[in-house]
Amino acid sequence: MNELTILIQCPDQVGLVTNITRVLAGQQLNIIAMREFVDEQHKTFFTRIACTGELAEPAKLKEKLLENLPNSAEVNLISQQEKNIAVLVTKEYHCLAEILIKNQFKTLGANVKCVIGNYEALKDFTEKLGIPYYYVSHEGKEKAQFESEIKEIIDQFEVDYIVLAKFMRILSADFVKDYEGKIVNIHHSFLPAFIGANPYKQAFERGVKIIGATAHFVTNNLDEGPIVTQHTTHVDHTFGVKEMVRSGKEIEKAVLLEALNLIFEDRVFVSGNKTIVFK
Amino acid sequence: MNELTILIQCPDQVGLVTNITRVLAGQQLNIIAMREFVDEQHKTFFTRIACTGELAEPAKLKEKLLENLPNSAEVNLISQQEKNIAVLVTKEYHCLAEILIKNQFKTLGANVKCVIGNYEALKDFTEKLGIPYYYVSHEGKEKAQFESEIKEIIDQFEVDYIVLAKFMRILSADFVKDYEGKIVNIHHSFLPAFIGANPYKQAFERGVKIIGATAHFVTNNLDEGPIVTQHTTHVDHTFGVKEMVRSGKEIEKAVLLEALNLIFEDRVFVSGNKTIVFK
Amino acid sequence: MNELTILIQCPDQVGLVTNITRVLAGQQLNIIAMREFVDEQHKTFFTRIACTGELAEPAKLKEKLLENLPNSAEVNLISQQEKNIAVLVTKEYHCLAEILIKNQFKTLGANVKCVIGNYEALKDFTEKLGIPYYYVSHEGKEKAQFESEIKEIIDQFEVDYIVLAKFMRILSADFVKDYEGKIVNIHHSFLPAFIGANPYKQAFERGVKIIGATAHFVTNNLDEGPIVTQHTTHVDHTFGVKEMVRSGKEIEKAVLLEALNLIFEDRVFVSGNKTIVFK
Amino acid sequence: MNELTILIQCPDQVGLVTNITRVLAGQQLNIIAMREFVDEQHKTFFTRIACTGELAEPAKLKEKLLENLPNSAEVNLISQQEKNIAVLVTKEYHCLAEILIKNQFKTLGANVKCVIGNYEALKDFTEKLGIPYYYVSHEGKEKAQFESEIKEIIDQFEVDYIVLAKFMRILSADFVKDYEGKIVNIHHSFLPAFIGANPYKQAFERGVKIIGATAHFVTNNLDEGPIVTQHTTHVDHTFGVKEMVRSGKEIEKAVLLEALNLIFEDRVFVSGNKTIVFK
Repeated sequence: MNELTILIQCPDQVGLVTNITRVLAGQQLNIIAMREFVDEQHKTFFTRIACTGELAEPAKLKEKLLENLPNSAEVNLISQQEKNIAVLVTKEYHCLAEILIKNQFKTLGANVKCVIGNYEALKDFTEKLGIPYYYVSHEGKEKAQFESEIKEIIDQFEVDYIVLAKFMRILSADFVKDYEGKIVNIHHSFLPAFIGANPYKQAFERGVKIIGATAHFVTNNLDEGPIVTQHTTHVDHTFGVKEMVRSGKEIEKAVLLEALNLIFEDRVFVSGNKTIVFK
Repeated sequence: MNELTILIQCPDQVGLVTNITRVLAGQQLNIIAMREFVDEQHKTFFTRIACTGELAEPAKLKEKLLENLPNSAEVNLISQQEKNIAVLVTKEYHCLAEILIKNQFKTLGANVKCVIGNYEALKDFTEKLGIPYYYVSHEGKEKAQFESEIKEIIDQFEVDYIVLAKFMRILSADFVKDYEGKIVNIHHSFLPAFIGANPYKQAFERGVKIIGATAHFVTNNLDEGPIVTQHTTHVDHTFGVKEMVRSGKEIEKAVLLEALNLIFEDRVFVSGNKTIVFK
Repeated sequence: MNELTILIQCPDQVGLVTNITRVLAGQQLNIIAMREFVDEQHKTFFTRIACTGELAEPAKLKEKLLENLPNSAEVNLISQQEKNIAVLVTKEYHCLAEILIKNQFKTLGANVKCVIGNYEALKDFTEKLGIPYYYVSHEGKEKAQFESEIKEIIDQFEVDYIVLAKFMRILSADFVKDYEGKIVNIHHSFLPAFIGANPYKQAFERGVKIIGATAHFVTNNLDEGPIVTQHTTHVDHTFGVKEMVRSGKEIEKAVLLEALNLIFEDRVFVSGNKTIVFK
Repeated sequence: MNELTILIQCPDQVGLVTNITRVLAGQQLNIIAMREFVDEQHKTFFTRIACTGELAEPAKLKEKLLENLPNSAEVNLISQQEKNIAVLVTKEYHCLAEILIKNQFKTLGANVKCVIGNYEALKDFTEKLGIPYYYVSHEGKEKAQFESEIKEIIDQFEVDYIVLAKFMRILSADFVKDYEGKIVNIHHSFLPAFIGANPYKQAFERGVKIIGATAHFVTNNLDEGPIVTQHTTHVDHTFGVKEMVRSGKEIEKAVLLEALNLIFEDRVFVSGNKTIVFK
């Protein structure tokens, strides 16, 4: 008995659930959990189905499903292999450490294949935990050159996702396009508040009583990609920028790890600039 | 086009979702939202399906569903009528006021048919908002007599639920049985902590840093019924019992109203001593 | 034995706490709670002191304190009288109802003297709870005329604060100046995100996973006054604008009431565009 | 200019703040933050004062303070040295890893001198991060013997606190007495709910909608020591015991680290079975 996760996205129409479940029953698959959502604005149907059963021919199941769905349907069959990821960092340790610790104790839901950093600050730490660290400085280089060096490393590994764990360089449109839908970033503010640089300084100056963090897929609109998770935490007048940063880091790592967990379990669909998250 | 909510609960077996959705398709019903859950411990399947369509004969749909489900299946078809409720109170206003205000502005999702109190404290306020208030004192009476007076009032109205909005008398096993699965209570602690009387005093003496509240269905095990919602809020060393009570009341009303909202939208199944809540 | 709250704000310098406590001791006042804060950016000292004692001559205490403090010090002695407030509304009931219910049961910490609305929607409800409602339409009038009618009503009562409980008109600079530091507003978003109109629509379109609300003092920078309290709540892809509004209203009323509670207990200092809140 | 933290605890009486601040002024110390609290039940006064200044003779300051305070006053002068700690573990990594990572990057506010475990599971990981790990099995030994081996190790280092980071053995009254007020534990439930073993199994069986964790000082009443911090997180019907454990571990580490942070900054007083926490 195997477990299989089926992800389907297609134009909405009457009878989709019936059609899909009939195909699964025909293949002797037993549905153990099913979630669906219709985006009324875009008339799009999304479903995530977890089933068990002996699946002789996955290709045939996919074909059968496509036959019974509208033309532009996308069907994804995922068996239980873990995702592989690359992590990009600059100097801050808190998100990277959380990822590497969970990787070390096999609770990340993915395998960290490599860490790439534009400084050497986190090299020793990463290597202590047995993960290769590639130092690629951005200094004295064109962005294209910098990114091409990074890509060369990433492409040595077959990674499913690239995690920006406080990577403080803005990626070019070309880079983002090459890994479309595969780059996850943690932004150090509750978007869309405090877009851009120094969000904690902005927060301090505005005198807010809450700070937050946002994990999102990266698109070519800076800080504007589809949001996966957000959390906030209270601050007060005694918090200077330093205290906000310290408190914010705890939120950042929690938000990023929650997003990664959802993504690695195939619970997140991207629909335009939004996400559908089947928790 | 009508909206219809279908609730089904039955022993789990392979193919239930397929069977159910095929029946719905056969009746030209379109599924707009579907949630299901299998309680592995008790091998029980639960589903809540929201559909639209012209349903000529509801009885026939129910019959068809039962034909395609295991023997002991329970099927409930709910069209969009609002629930009717009775509210029982003692002296504290905060939960009652929240219910009556939402009732007044038609955002409760139910109609308050009457308020019954064992003191007169909340009579004027209730009547100002146009709801009949019945004063039934418990003093100098056997519990059976007290409860029989309450039942007589409740039974004048066809109520779907009885809400104990800080009603401070313990109901007898007979009363509870008469309204099985229909009585919702707000308990002024984070159950199972501080069961019984004076939970805020207990909390103060224990020096906890969090207090909470619990909305649950009432069964014959005091403070032990199936929990629908719970929330907590932080307290600190500056909170005496009085401040905990004040802060706790805000949580109590929020927790109770969240539970009522879920119950009135038919999102809550009871399974043994637990609930399944399809948010 | 009376209770007295002393609020002091002055340029920071060495020895302030000592000077202040010596004066209090000289007047036989016993400090029961003391909070202080130094805004390092503006080199300003803030303290809130709660004391008990027989205070023969309050004017003399104030004089003594001023003698022992830097030149531009502001000293406020507050005995335990409740604040009086006016509430301005448009059509939404949720914040007003929360205020009027707490006013009715004497747990607001202030007395509502009047409600002024630019529609008649909330008139009946307000009057049922025994509070005078003044209907002042903004239609077919210059803003100056509209505001002058409002001022005439407010000025009949000696109010300490004006609460904008979902009052959907922008007040002129003149009006705001006339009641400087006395106007409290609830903004239906987590500022500075979604400044301006239709924040829930903006939130829906951005696909955020959290919405919030902000209570702030009103200044002449729209949505930019000193923030008193903020809270957020989670939303997901199933929330349309309508569901966000519904969920947001619960946060709005909680945030506004928390802010009012702090303000009515004299726990909030305004310092430039920020607040110091001694919880 | 040095920073100095002064902690005072004594029977309450009129004029304490004045007396204390006068002594500090006499020593040319400048108060930068001061918090006080009176436990009305036990008539005890607590204060935490942060000051700056050149302190020639600390012993003299302490003497002066004691002269001006009630007889049984306790005065603690703390200059800015970091605390040293020992960490006790069994097999679970999540709390230990959080401590060691923060230790590694100098953001713990304390130095981890050693880790002691009754299994070898966490040895390699601890040593990778450069901290000595002592394996002391409890098997085939009297408790007295087991604890004496642990004590021998702890006493090689001058530790200020012993952190039980999911150490699953119950310590004897003698051991606890030897390190009175110095042992901090993380309990995997929201105390006082689910005292004892397997709290997540208990939580699952009760069908709660919230789980939590509690950091507390250890006393000889198991799970009954003074609570420092608590947090909760929502769960629902889809959570089995395994999912509750997974979610609970995130709360456990957050709660423990928040408590340690407060303790290492000398913000926590113990008063009987409660704590006063000056955040």
